[in-house]
Amino acid sequence: MGQKKSKNTVAEHKQEVSIGLKALGTDIYNQLDKGFFPSVNMPSRSTENINYDPATRQYILGERTVNRSARNIRHVKPFTQLAWAAMFSNELTSHRKTSTLRDVYYSAQAYEMTFSDQQESNNIITDLETITGFSREDFNIFPEERSAIFGDLTIGYTVPGYEGKTLNLTSHPDGVLIGPALTSSEFVGTNADKVIAIEKGALFTRFIEENVHNKHKSLLISCGGQAPRQTRSFIRRLHEELNLPVYIFTDGDPWGMHIAQVIISGSANAAHLRALNTPDAVWSGVWASDIIEYKLPTDPLDEVDIKRLYELQRDPRYQNDPLWQREIKTFLKIKKKAEQEAFSRYGLTYIVDEYLPRKLDGNSKK
Amino acid sequence: MGQKKSKNTVAEHKQEVSIGLKALGTDIYNQLDKGFFPSVNMPSRSTENINYDPATRQYILGERTVNRSARNIRHVKPFTQLAWAAMFSNELTSHRKTSTLRDVYYSAQAYEMTFSDQQESNNIITDLETITGFSREDFNIFPEERSAIFGDLTIGYTVPGYEGKTLNLTSHPDGVLIGPALTSSEFVGTNADKVIAIEKGALFTRFIEENVHNKHKSLLISCGGQAPRQTRSFIRRLHEELNLPVYIFTDGDPWGMHIAQVIISGSANAAHLRALNTPDAVWSGVWASDIIEYKLPTDPLDEVDIKRLYELQRDPRYQNDPLWQREIKTFLKIKKKAEQEAFSRYGLTYIVDEYLPRKLDGNSKK
Repeated sequence: MGQKKSKNTVAEHKQEVSIGLKALGTDIYNQLDKGFFPSVNMPSRSTENINYDPATRQYILGERTVNRSARNIRHVKPFTQLAWAAMFSNELTSHRKTSTLRDVYYSAQAYEMTFSDQQESNNIITDLETITGFSREDFNIFPEERSAIFGDLTIGYTVPGYEGKTLNLTSHPDGVLIGPALTSSEFVGTNADKVIAIEKGALFTRFIEENVHNKHKSLLISCGGQAPRQTRSFIRRLHEELNLPVYIFTDGDPWGMHIAQVIISGSANAAHLRALNTPDAVWSGVWASDIIEYKLPTDPLDEVDIKRLYELQRDPRYQNDPLWQREIKTFLKIKKKAEQEAFSRYGLTYIVDEYLPRKLDGNSKK
Repeated sequence: MGQKKSKNTVAEHKQEVSIGLKALGTDIYNQLDKGFFPSVNMPSRSTENINYDPATRQYILGERTVNRSARNIRHVKPFTQLAWAAMFSNELTSHRKTSTLRDVYYSAQAYEMTFSDQQESNNIITDLETITGFSREDFNIFPEERSAIFGDLTIGYTVPGYEGKTLNLTSHPDGVLIGPALTSSEFVGTNADKVIAIEKGALFTRFIEENVHNKHKSLLISCGGQAPRQTRSFIRRLHEELNLPVYIFTDGDPWGMHIAQVIISGSANAAHLRALNTPDAVWSGVWASDIIEYKLPTDPLDEVDIKRLYELQRDPRYQNDPLWQREIKTFLKIKKKAEQEAFSRYGLTYIVDEYLPRKLDGNSKK
């Protein structure tokens, strides 16, 4: 793979998005032109139609489809809303403006398009994702949450006013925000040989201070809790385009474990989308067995934690993998959890000097 | 003022922090040396001792003090914890490492210093703030939350490995994270003539895309909801060292209003600290009267909103200012609220093209 392949990825992808929207519009136009009531077909997103696919290692939608037809009086409104959402997405992307789900809801009013509440407009955007196969971020509809990256990667911007400009992601030692400008950039070059994704911003800062990016030739990512979708797809790009292995460090509890799992296997909510997950990424810790091995300070698992562990044990994403099953069992046995900061009991740099190298080493052997 | 004055501010401030910690240590040492049980005096932080001070336009602590003496068996533990916290803060600042409240709690265990829970260690850090008059950020103890800045300001780093390096804050169009490295930097130069602080990240991105930083020669700050303390003190530095007026844009509801108020007048929780607030900053909107004037799409105020408005009406920070009182009354009259995104009903750029210039203009006249 390497960097050559990545060169035109962003521009090509943008064009694909534009073609997808145009195809939808052309389809509706042609039906109208022939004197038909226009309709669209899309995969059903009902729970029964969401299946875990071991081949792609993520949730996907099954065979069931739903038809939305302007002929059906109950469908006229959502059909019109969908057509508007596609038109608005096309405006955003062609004018290179970004937006949010909240903005979409209010913007509709500028077109005298009404949604009874934001849930309704959110659903229509998900419909558009399902039909086109592109995510709302592809349509420049971004969430509030931001995460950050730091390390020796040079990016080339594609946003207006910054074309041709590059930035090396070591330029700001607090980390570089992963927003629309970053995720739409091309990869120019890197000396890193791995990606380390970290649940918490505080540990991300510690890793930068302790020079982990140099010592372990890595790109560091702060997920800021559950990684936003744009960050998950950015991690996948780093893996695919630059061929970098991905290691994930979270708190040692069911919630941290699942943050790693969603980066690896995606979420059921995004079963209608692809390219958000990184199946080859590795959850490197904090494992339940690390809590024992490193004698970490702990808190007891509470009822919600335990209930969550039993849920995860039955979750298809956790099946057929001895690591996940072993760690769930260990959590249930020790009935304890530990945060990443718990390593500070051995001094502030222990996690970087001792724990991290052993885990990076151990994971590559496993 | 201007930029000359700002040149050595950061370095000088760091030295003051170091001197403050040393003074505390010397005081304890001297008492021990004379054969006394060491003790410290500090202002009481009990509710009765927190008063609003119209002169400095913020909450301050009153005359009451508490004495913590190693002679008192009930004080021995917190006294020791306090001495440890001062020592640990000194290690952090002299080794130029950053930390978090959570980290402090766990780090104590590396020194066989015990806290029964994190609340206890948080309280000790606040004691240390009260005694020294410096905030925990001065001791390199930072929160998780991060906000961002964008605009034509060149900063000079003081963190290890970046000494002598500068960054212009237009270098990354998603915005530059306000973290330890940014807040500890010196100001090198700016062409901006104002600061615009924005409650939400999405609108911050919109402002960047619409070139507000150039059109209105401004530094844009994304507060990310309630602005973290380090961001509030950074806004104050921008105002004081660069002599820039500050305008704040929030959602049009009691919570947005209070986000602006805390930037302006500070919080009761920080009554023991100075230099976190910017009394001359101006809340520019979204006002309740803007909701009427611009016919914004609204949601009804719910019970919690209304309860909050009555609380704010009695709050000393809202007294003696006709703007705040008028807007509270207007909210209570119209019983409606509106988000910043509500302006999108007039198109995505209306807020930048129409609303913002009028508010910047109107506020300077008011």
